[in-house]
Amino acid sequence: MKIITFGEVMLRLSPPGVERFVQTDVLDMHFGGTEANVAVSLAQFGLDANHVTRFPDHALGRAAAGYLRRYNVGTQYIRYGDGRLGLYFLETGAGSRASQIIYDRVDSAFTRIQADGIDWETVLTGAAWFHWTGITPALSQGAADCLLAGIQTANRLGVPVSGDIVYRSNLWQYGRTPQEIMPALTEGCTLVLGSKALFSELYGVVGSTFTEAGRALMERFPRVKYVTDTKRTSLSASHNRLSAKLYDGETVFKSRTYTMNPIVDRIGTGDAYMAGLIYGLVSFNDPQRAVEFGAAASALKHTIPGDVNLATVAEVETLERGDSSGKLKR
Amino acid sequence: MKIITFGEVMLRLSPPGVERFVQTDVLDMHFGGTEANVAVSLAQFGLDANHVTRFPDHALGRAAAGYLRRYNVGTQYIRYGDGRLGLYFLETGAGSRASQIIYDRVDSAFTRIQADGIDWETVLTGAAWFHWTGITPALSQGAADCLLAGIQTANRLGVPVSGDIVYRSNLWQYGRTPQEIMPALTEGCTLVLGSKALFSELYGVVGSTFTEAGRALMERFPRVKYVTDTKRTSLSASHNRLSAKLYDGETVFKSRTYTMNPIVDRIGTGDAYMAGLIYGLVSFNDPQRAVEFGAAASALKHTIPGDVNLATVAEVETLERGDSSGKLKR
Amino acid sequence: MKIITFGEVMLRLSPPGVERFVQTDVLDMHFGGTEANVAVSLAQFGLDANHVTRFPDHALGRAAAGYLRRYNVGTQYIRYGDGRLGLYFLETGAGSRASQIIYDRVDSAFTRIQADGIDWETVLTGAAWFHWTGITPALSQGAADCLLAGIQTANRLGVPVSGDIVYRSNLWQYGRTPQEIMPALTEGCTLVLGSKALFSELYGVVGSTFTEAGRALMERFPRVKYVTDTKRTSLSASHNRLSAKLYDGETVFKSRTYTMNPIVDRIGTGDAYMAGLIYGLVSFNDPQRAVEFGAAASALKHTIPGDVNLATVAEVETLERGDSSGKLKR
Amino acid sequence: MKIITFGEVMLRLSPPGVERFVQTDVLDMHFGGTEANVAVSLAQFGLDANHVTRFPDHALGRAAAGYLRRYNVGTQYIRYGDGRLGLYFLETGAGSRASQIIYDRVDSAFTRIQADGIDWETVLTGAAWFHWTGITPALSQGAADCLLAGIQTANRLGVPVSGDIVYRSNLWQYGRTPQEIMPALTEGCTLVLGSKALFSELYGVVGSTFTEAGRALMERFPRVKYVTDTKRTSLSASHNRLSAKLYDGETVFKSRTYTMNPIVDRIGTGDAYMAGLIYGLVSFNDPQRAVEFGAAASALKHTIPGDVNLATVAEVETLERGDSSGKLKR
Amino acid sequence: MKIITFGEVMLRLSPPGVERFVQTDVLDMHFGGTEANVAVSLAQFGLDANHVTRFPDHALGRAAAGYLRRYNVGTQYIRYGDGRLGLYFLETGAGSRASQIIYDRVDSAFTRIQADGIDWETVLTGAAWFHWTGITPALSQGAADCLLAGIQTANRLGVPVSGDIVYRSNLWQYGRTPQEIMPALTEGCTLVLGSKALFSELYGVVGSTFTEAGRALMERFPRVKYVTDTKRTSLSASHNRLSAKLYDGETVFKSRTYTMNPIVDRIGTGDAYMAGLIYGLVSFNDPQRAVEFGAAASALKHTIPGDVNLATVAEVETLERGDSSGKLKR
Amino acid sequence: MKIITFGEVMLRLSPPGVERFVQTDVLDMHFGGTEANVAVSLAQFGLDANHVTRFPDHALGRAAAGYLRRYNVGTQYIRYGDGRLGLYFLETGAGSRASQIIYDRVDSAFTRIQADGIDWETVLTGAAWFHWTGITPALSQGAADCLLAGIQTANRLGVPVSGDIVYRSNLWQYGRTPQEIMPALTEGCTLVLGSKALFSELYGVVGSTFTEAGRALMERFPRVKYVTDTKRTSLSASHNRLSAKLYDGETVFKSRTYTMNPIVDRIGTGDAYMAGLIYGLVSFNDPQRAVEFGAAASALKHTIPGDVNLATVAEVETLERGDSSGKLKR
Repeated sequence: MKIITFGEVMLRLSPPGVERFVQTDVLDMHFGGTEANVAVSLAQFGLDANHVTRFPDHALGRAAAGYLRRYNVGTQYIRYGDGRLGLYFLETGAGSRASQIIYDRVDSAFTRIQADGIDWETVLTGAAWFHWTGITPALSQGAADCLLAGIQTANRLGVPVSGDIVYRSNLWQYGRTPQEIMPALTEGCTLVLGSKALFSELYGVVGSTFTEAGRALMERFPRVKYVTDTKRTSLSASHNRLSAKLYDGETVFKSRTYTMNPIVDRIGTGDAYMAGLIYGLVSFNDPQRAVEFGAAASALKHTIPGDVNLATVAEVETLERGDSSGKLKR
Repeated sequence: MKIITFGEVMLRLSPPGVERFVQTDVLDMHFGGTEANVAVSLAQFGLDANHVTRFPDHALGRAAAGYLRRYNVGTQYIRYGDGRLGLYFLETGAGSRASQIIYDRVDSAFTRIQADGIDWETVLTGAAWFHWTGITPALSQGAADCLLAGIQTANRLGVPVSGDIVYRSNLWQYGRTPQEIMPALTEGCTLVLGSKALFSELYGVVGSTFTEAGRALMERFPRVKYVTDTKRTSLSASHNRLSAKLYDGETVFKSRTYTMNPIVDRIGTGDAYMAGLIYGLVSFNDPQRAVEFGAAASALKHTIPGDVNLATVAEVETLERGDSSGKLKR
Repeated sequence: MKIITFGEVMLRLSPPGVERFVQTDVLDMHFGGTEANVAVSLAQFGLDANHVTRFPDHALGRAAAGYLRRYNVGTQYIRYGDGRLGLYFLETGAGSRASQIIYDRVDSAFTRIQADGIDWETVLTGAAWFHWTGITPALSQGAADCLLAGIQTANRLGVPVSGDIVYRSNLWQYGRTPQEIMPALTEGCTLVLGSKALFSELYGVVGSTFTEAGRALMERFPRVKYVTDTKRTSLSASHNRLSAKLYDGETVFKSRTYTMNPIVDRIGTGDAYMAGLIYGLVSFNDPQRAVEFGAAASALKHTIPGDVNLATVAEVETLERGDSSGKLKR
Repeated sequence: MKIITFGEVMLRLSPPGVERFVQTDVLDMHFGGTEANVAVSLAQFGLDANHVTRFPDHALGRAAAGYLRRYNVGTQYIRYGDGRLGLYFLETGAGSRASQIIYDRVDSAFTRIQADGIDWETVLTGAAWFHWTGITPALSQGAADCLLAGIQTANRLGVPVSGDIVYRSNLWQYGRTPQEIMPALTEGCTLVLGSKALFSELYGVVGSTFTEAGRALMERFPRVKYVTDTKRTSLSASHNRLSAKLYDGETVFKSRTYTMNPIVDRIGTGDAYMAGLIYGLVSFNDPQRAVEFGAAASALKHTIPGDVNLATVAEVETLERGDSSGKLKR
Repeated sequence: MKIITFGEVMLRLSPPGVERFVQTDVLDMHFGGTEANVAVSLAQFGLDANHVTRFPDHALGRAAAGYLRRYNVGTQYIRYGDGRLGLYFLETGAGSRASQIIYDRVDSAFTRIQADGIDWETVLTGAAWFHWTGITPALSQGAADCLLAGIQTANRLGVPVSGDIVYRSNLWQYGRTPQEIMPALTEGCTLVLGSKALFSELYGVVGSTFTEAGRALMERFPRVKYVTDTKRTSLSASHNRLSAKLYDGETVFKSRTYTMNPIVDRIGTGDAYMAGLIYGLVSFNDPQRAVEFGAAASALKHTIPGDVNLATVAEVETLERGDSSGKLKR
Repeated sequence: MKIITFGEVMLRLSPPGVERFVQTDVLDMHFGGTEANVAVSLAQFGLDANHVTRFPDHALGRAAAGYLRRYNVGTQYIRYGDGRLGLYFLETGAGSRASQIIYDRVDSAFTRIQADGIDWETVLTGAAWFHWTGITPALSQGAADCLLAGIQTANRLGVPVSGDIVYRSNLWQYGRTPQEIMPALTEGCTLVLGSKALFSELYGVVGSTFTEAGRALMERFPRVKYVTDTKRTSLSASHNRLSAKLYDGETVFKSRTYTMNPIVDRIGTGDAYMAGLIYGLVSFNDPQRAVEFGAAASALKHTIPGDVNLATVAEVETLERGDSSGKLKR
């Protein structure tokens, strides 16, 4: 089952363990990006996931593509060109000390992509899903345009589209507001991940509950069949709780609440949820199980170093069915 | 006090920390095997522990012996010959993600041992204890035969024998069933580690409680003076509880329940119990203290990387006496 | 704001993670000493902290000074000469296994310092604070004499003085007792960190509560304006609770109780409290906030590898205000 | 340009740097196999290289495939099933100390492949080259049969075939001799890598020089258009010299002699030559340049850790043109 | 003796040993910049070296300053503000494989410095030397302006100035040519490091030999008292030869030729020469010894990991006097 | 064949690779001491080597003993008691940069040994060789006395004795001169390793050549049957040449000259010679082969990290027979 994701991939550099930047002499390398993280997770679940992006045409860009391939993500649609590789520096916290990120992604090769930078017709033909997030249109006009072209092609080809409408205000630096850009993108979605507050802020769609706001969103964007969100309680950097809900316009499907303790790596846990939910929706004819699978996938990601969820379907199913005992598998 | 243990030792290869196989480029080396783990622990307790096994006659076999000697286990009875070194690959879990083991031990040098492969008379003369487990007779006819010769020699020389009758069904590949092999081995034991269910499955010995089943086992095998078992509650891969009980045919001695959180390394914790119990039985004239020492030793092992328990008597005693505060020792 | 601390700095050598000495082939290097730890923490808080000590005149002594400078501590007053670098070997525990320290500091370059070894007039001119601990006078007559000269100079110049009157009986090897030496040093203090029991043991000052004992201490040593202490509950090597109190002769100011779980590094957490308290006293006209800042600083130190607290004011303030959620900072 | 290689891939485990097995506690992981090494090198040169093999269906088999993909080798034709992952343990020497290998590849998943284990029609359609070596037919009857099927399919489809007829006598354990098996495989080759001595030993084809023996081989196997070999002078484990020659039945094309000092990793340097030669033959209409490119590629491989040559075409060309200055590229 | 250097400092990220970018999962951190490298080296020689730059006001900028302080360079004149930290990625070669650098320094905090960004009057008062290079004016108009202000202040205060007029054409991106900018900067120099070819290209100053061109440069810029250059022969990435010459308008002083084999780290070796030469000129009244000291310092730098020369005066003197035996010092 | 060596064992701490102390954050651990190094090497050669020393009775002392056992050296005669573990810090050089050692061995547990600290009768009964060096009598009166008792016991029991009369002037701090102490120790020797200059300085025995001086030594100390010495040419820290000679009072046996390039670890190479020579003398009835074996063993040691020679007899024999090609062993 061919899956397409689109967005920037950054080199992540982090001190070993829970060391601070100021005390380390070595940095662990990972690569990550919210959409690529979804692709990697779906590849572990056995789907034919392919990530679309634009990398610099040098050894680091090639290393980034190698990282995706190592985890079984297809890289044949990736473009190479000028610009730098986006970076982020992550310091992992513990207990009452928060993790911290320093982004260094300005003017990356991805931001220089143009509206016609991807041959979406080729990329999306035969695809079973297309996933994007609100990071991409925030980066540059070209990225926003190219994404819109992708969504419209997906719509034309009948490929379901999911959008994680995450909004980071400090990213929108190229002169447009999310209110100008996001509606046209969201319009093409089958599934939207976002909060009631975001529905209001980005689209002026309001409701007193997530369900009401979700229904309003579906009225505004009739293609949208599902809205979803997660709820996280942070007891400390090492101890969180998480649950998810999925609304199809009629019923709210809620997952169990998962406890994560200790948290090995907090990054990419939302993307792991999205990947699990997509896998659930395309694999089970059962929204309840899909949201449970997504939440369990997210819970497992908290135990895995790096941005990407390397859990298998069997592992997620074990947890989804309520076995969080962590008993040794021989 | 000379102690003899007998069984296979494998090279354990595990990604650093809680990384997964698919994402690591380096593997930590340890060596371990359930019986050798008991020997190492007893050596830390100050006993003259000696492990008997058969290693391949190459640099890895010698490295394995060096590992045992580093931890003060005698290796003078080890034989070297053809065959490979058994391996196992361990991926350490955390939280809701279970640890996983991939065994790669087929056709190891140890499985090629023959009935007369060890000069048991020499090995066991002067020994105060002999320990074996149900892994050894599962590996090959030669290993089962050689073990039986050892147990019979121990019986003849008056050396107490302990058997951990662990049963792993996927190991029994050489054409015999445990029901055929285990009774003769168990017959020679003074102390048996096993569950009520195992007593029934392996020997057809039944009882409605561990005590009843234990008494029935003692009737079947009159040499057996003690039966013992542990009880583990897995809250997650990082958080377990453990207690132990020892039955001498009259009284059930129960240990306190220990909480392990976080768990650094789950492997070898049962062996650490066995070693602590053996140490307790040969050192204290007090079964209650012996089972408590064993359970505390097992609890401590959960904090130590590798298969083997490197805790000292003083450390076990601190915990056994109820001080689990972990206060800094200067 | 110029701060002066005085005392020995040792090279700390510890196996990676929670490995034991007997199983490691590599040792992590840190440098630390109770007074220098205070200086490093104050330097992170933005103060002009300078540490005064005596190092051997070779590459390790220079590396130790480099370590302090890396964390922004001034090293211009450090003296170099004969003698060795003090060392300590630290094995970090977990759960029910305690951390262990092997000290190897005998005859270090610092212990060879003489009464006139430091030009205190130059060092303390313009200083806003001078900090010492009970480790220094325990090491040698020269160290005790030199410290006394420093305290007296500080008193003359009107520089506030804090003393952590920690008493380690095995250190006092040069023929004098703390009862002979400590009173003259304590007399010069504005702020004393110690327990009721210590007040009695060292000065014969008694009281049925910390407050009463503190008031008696203030009567005995009229310069003392504040007494302070922390209270720690050790649930395991990985899980502690901590609170602090500060008494100004009239009011007892108590901090919240902080939970530390997991504990990354227990060493230097008392020094982190002292640094936080000093920062609070010189920065806020508010003893309640000062003690809270100190306790929060100490709590954060438990999450940071090494002896020194690398937390910033902003991080301490986040926790001090009650946010221990550890939420990711982007 | 689609390239197909076929053969076993092993997990290589080696102590860091030049440590010995007996002194290390950690092993570096690489994956390698003579044919897969050729594929990786060709992938770095920009060709669409695909490796065909059979891996165990567990996390280590998937990690092996991930390793190949990381370096841009296609893994879609790989089969998964029972059996273990072949291993080899490498100790890297230096100076007068030789590197040593302990193989542990018996009964690997690859050896269990059957004659019809690969759908060669699909695999080879559209391919521009097929490469095999004498390791494969030595491993098992199934492997030899499957390889023969592949070569015959390639011949039928008009795909050029290269064979590195390396002969390791200790591998041939399944009851057949290379003299029985190799001729039918060699018959399908366009290019044969081997020495005069091997031509004689394996096929009874003799000649007083490499050229004469090569011509005799071409007469015996008329499909063979090229024979090639390398010549290595080992001054020490850190210092070698290498040259290559290629004979097309008329002319002997000789490369320059390359000096390798220091040697970082000796493994896979012959495979790097083969890959360079294949690249040269399919890219340049110039046998002289092809052999030079191959020899330069091999020389560069000596500077790269692991089994596989990660040099690019540009790097090989720099060396091939005579610039061995190693001048910094900014 | 107070020394001032001015220029960008970058975070250097390099795979361990001689690994390639595409195969590493970890990067070693160093910091470096041609002018700061000179400062670190002079600090090891015992001078009061201070580096002036502009860093981003976040944890990485502070880590960079900590790195300089660790090696005893004063950081009190460093400014903090907006912009990113410049980076470069270094892959270290060996033998015939060249080292490669990927620069990622666009729009760094340093490039945003303004003409009045530094209070040069304060910085240079009391200084004995000021050093700059041709990298700085290539980065931005602000950097060029600020540098010119520094040189003019140095001239006014009578501080000797050295300029390494290195020219990297790909850096000059802000609209000015080096021919427009460099002459005014060079005019303020006492010592110029550059080749005959550069004198011609940048200033139109020609001569048939280095001596003639140097004399012409001195005529054009009467402040210039010395010109200097090094000559390197690259036998491979691991084996180089180096010599230096210094011309004072009358005499050419030539160093011995040094052989470097093996080369541990090639980066910063030119800066090590400059630092050695400056140290020699300010310490010895002997140009011959100064150039010899510089060349020996550069040779030693090739054995030290990182950008900066951590050799001491005693070590340089040993080599300068002709002892390259590398005999163990106890 | 039982061999006894006697002397201090130190913990060696060294930065990874060729890093300098000032730049490292981690130290590699080895253990070594000139006499123990001989024991380890002889254990690799298959002899029953046992080291006698005195260690502190704490975890580091036990780790040191574990290190020796790992390499098959018997530790049953080791005594434990008060005092510290001797240390040395090693910085490994390269090329023209020398390695440097900072010793930190004052007042170690070994120096506190007393004349009757070892039960030599038990230790030496059945031994085939006893080895000591001039380091031991330099450390303390007790060490010198205990050593003398050992040598005298060996003489009484007819055990051959070898002495490496190395003289380090800075060690002799306890009030006696080597001229007072060494003669009585040397008198008991069968084999003496030392130079003509040392024979003169320590015993006043002179000769114009090594042979003459050796003959004079044999006249002075009639037990001495062999004198031996090595000759090293240091081309750089990475490139040395070495040869050895052995004189039996009649004939001078000279080894080939070995070239070591690159040198991985220079420490313990003299001890490796001594071990090789001892092995040769006790194994071959051929002084020429013995000196050749010793020199080849020493050459191999230069390729092995740590103080101890881990080469096997087969490896030494390969080199001794002239094969220094370092060809891969499969």
